Amino acid sequence: MELAFLEWLERRVATHPLVTVGPGDDAAVLAPAGSRSTVVTTDALTDQVDFRLGVDPPARIGRKALAVNLSDLAAMAAEPVAAFVSLVLPRADAGPLARELTLGMLDLAREFDLAIAGGDTNCWDGGLVINVTAVGRTTAKGPVLRSGGRPGDVVLATGRFGGSLLGRQFDFTPRIREALAIHARWDVRAAIDVSDGLSLDLHRLAAASRCGAELDRNAIPVAPAAYLRSLSPDDRLSPLEHALGDGEDFELLLAMPEADAARLLDEQPFACGVARIGRLVPEPGLWLVDSLGRRSPLVPRGFEHLGRTTERTTETGE
Amino acid sequence: MELAFLEWLERRVATHPLVTVGPGDDAAVLAPAGSRSTVVTTDALTDQVDFRLGVDPPARIGRKALAVNLSDLAAMAAEPVAAFVSLVLPRADAGPLARELTLGMLDLAREFDLAIAGGDTNCWDGGLVINVTAVGRTTAKGPVLRSGGRPGDVVLATGRFGGSLLGRQFDFTPRIREALAIHARWDVRAAIDVSDGLSLDLHRLAAASRCGAELDRNAIPVAPAAYLRSLSPDDRLSPLEHALGDGEDFELLLAMPEADAARLLDEQPFACGVARIGRLVPEPGLWLVDSLGRRSPLVPRGFEHLGRTTERTTETGE
Repeated sequence: MELAFLEWLERRVATHPLVTVGPGDDAAVLAPAGSRSTVVTTDALTDQVDFRLGVDPPARIGRKALAVNLSDLAAMAAEPVAAFVSLVLPRADAGPLARELTLGMLDLAREFDLAIAGGDTNCWDGGLVINVTAVGRTTAKGPVLRSGGRPGDVVLATGRFGGSLLGRQFDFTPRIREALAIHARWDVRAAIDVSDGLSLDLHRLAAASRCGAELDRNAIPVAPAAYLRSLSPDDRLSPLEHALGDGEDFELLLAMPEADAARLLDEQPFACGVARIGRLVPEPGLWLVDSLGRRSPLVPRGFEHLGRTTERTTETGE
Repeated sequence: MELAFLEWLERRVATHPLVTVGPGDDAAVLAPAGSRSTVVTTDALTDQVDFRLGVDPPARIGRKALAVNLSDLAAMAAEPVAAFVSLVLPRADAGPLARELTLGMLDLAREFDLAIAGGDTNCWDGGLVINVTAVGRTTAKGPVLRSGGRPGDVVLATGRFGGSLLGRQFDFTPRIREALAIHARWDVRAAIDVSDGLSLDLHRLAAASRCGAELDRNAIPVAPAAYLRSLSPDDRLSPLEHALGDGEDFELLLAMPEADAARLLDEQPFACGVARIGRLVPEPGLWLVDSLGRRSPLVPRGFEHLGRTTERTTETGE
């Protein structure tokens, strides 16, 4: 990182006891975490796809760039340790933009007790790109993978789904605390965070677990924003369709044994709520089940990162 | 990462025994490394600054994106474990470009025994950006920092300097093996890799060590490419000036006690060569010392990532 920005950052930086060498050397050093494994995830956000520079305030953009990575750590039931931030900045106004973006990250880093332990800051003649790599560590119970689900497992979801384009794509709370609390007390066999769409991400969890999945039509927690989007004159999707395919909800889907799921649902320990939305089944595929128990195939929908021509901002069109 | 690219990658991927969960989940999992610390570095490369898409072959661009990060691990004397690769791709031809870039990384990953353990692949309407985060672990002797140098330490350099724009910016070998071998057998008090310029990076090492540094004018190993650049009709710099300020040499500067440096120099164990180029001194600053022992101040020159308007490709001009 260049010197003036580094000095600015060092006065503000969030720290973590495991980070023994932070920004300013050739690399950061993280102390050994005993028997805990290290969890690493990386995500790039780009202008006009994940945010709109000039419309969305830079601090919100920076917050989102870190938050999407924390959501991935949550899906692994890992505790955050450090984030590494690469900024690729449009040449005009690069310094002030870098600081605004970073301020948004620092607030979130402090909230979740992780360090901004390093990064790289560049200017170019192109648009804004932010890459964040988040490093966490597993708890004593180890990581939760996508692949551990079994037929018969109940599928639970935190929070509500759909319409996150109206604001929650920036303001969501990564479900770190919820994931760690659930993992500590109950048996979680598989988990994924919903970045690209409830139906698409559930399909991914089920496929990784070599299962299929059924979703109960009337059990999907539909966000108020999904109704709002559906009311818009140029919108052709139902609120449920928004909930199933919008993406960027950054809620968790969890596959759990029936008994553990029942105890968690009884207790309802989180403000965001936890709902039973379906189950894993032996045959591969995805189905929607109505209140009469009738099953219809559900095409997984959501945002694909490569090989689609639609923008995230129009992903729910058609 | 999106599915088709992920499947393609999984058939080719370089692995590492510490990587217990690789690409395909929400995050990668790295097994505990015992008493070793984890070392993390990240670098973003952008079109028209660090490479020229359409001129430089994508496999060479991909190789460079990984190699610059391995050079940072070398500067910490860390063993590579895993790399995480974010590709931000121009929409046209994104799939083939992603594969070509990755092939260049995979060759280097196999050469240095690290895994490509995860990443993120995106398309947009802008230019190519590649971000790589490299994760390594320290050896039993711990990391080497920039800040451990002391007045009287000898400054050694691997390889030769200057003119790397003519090709070595893509083809350089990160000095991982040299760093690990030197660190294992001798006392290395401080190290840095020369990414931005010999004089600028030595200045950084000296400043982090609260020292100054003297460079022996006639001891700087000037690369043949520095002479070639100097011969170009529109070039106004001497070969030595190219060596001191060009950057992207990705050689190592090492501060070592006199006795250890002498033994290493006697042995000359590496094909790239190791030279004694100067020493750390108590007073802050940077000096060039001629063959008669006359000292003149040297302005640290090189590439600054933020706040300069010059491109890397013109960094040596005025």
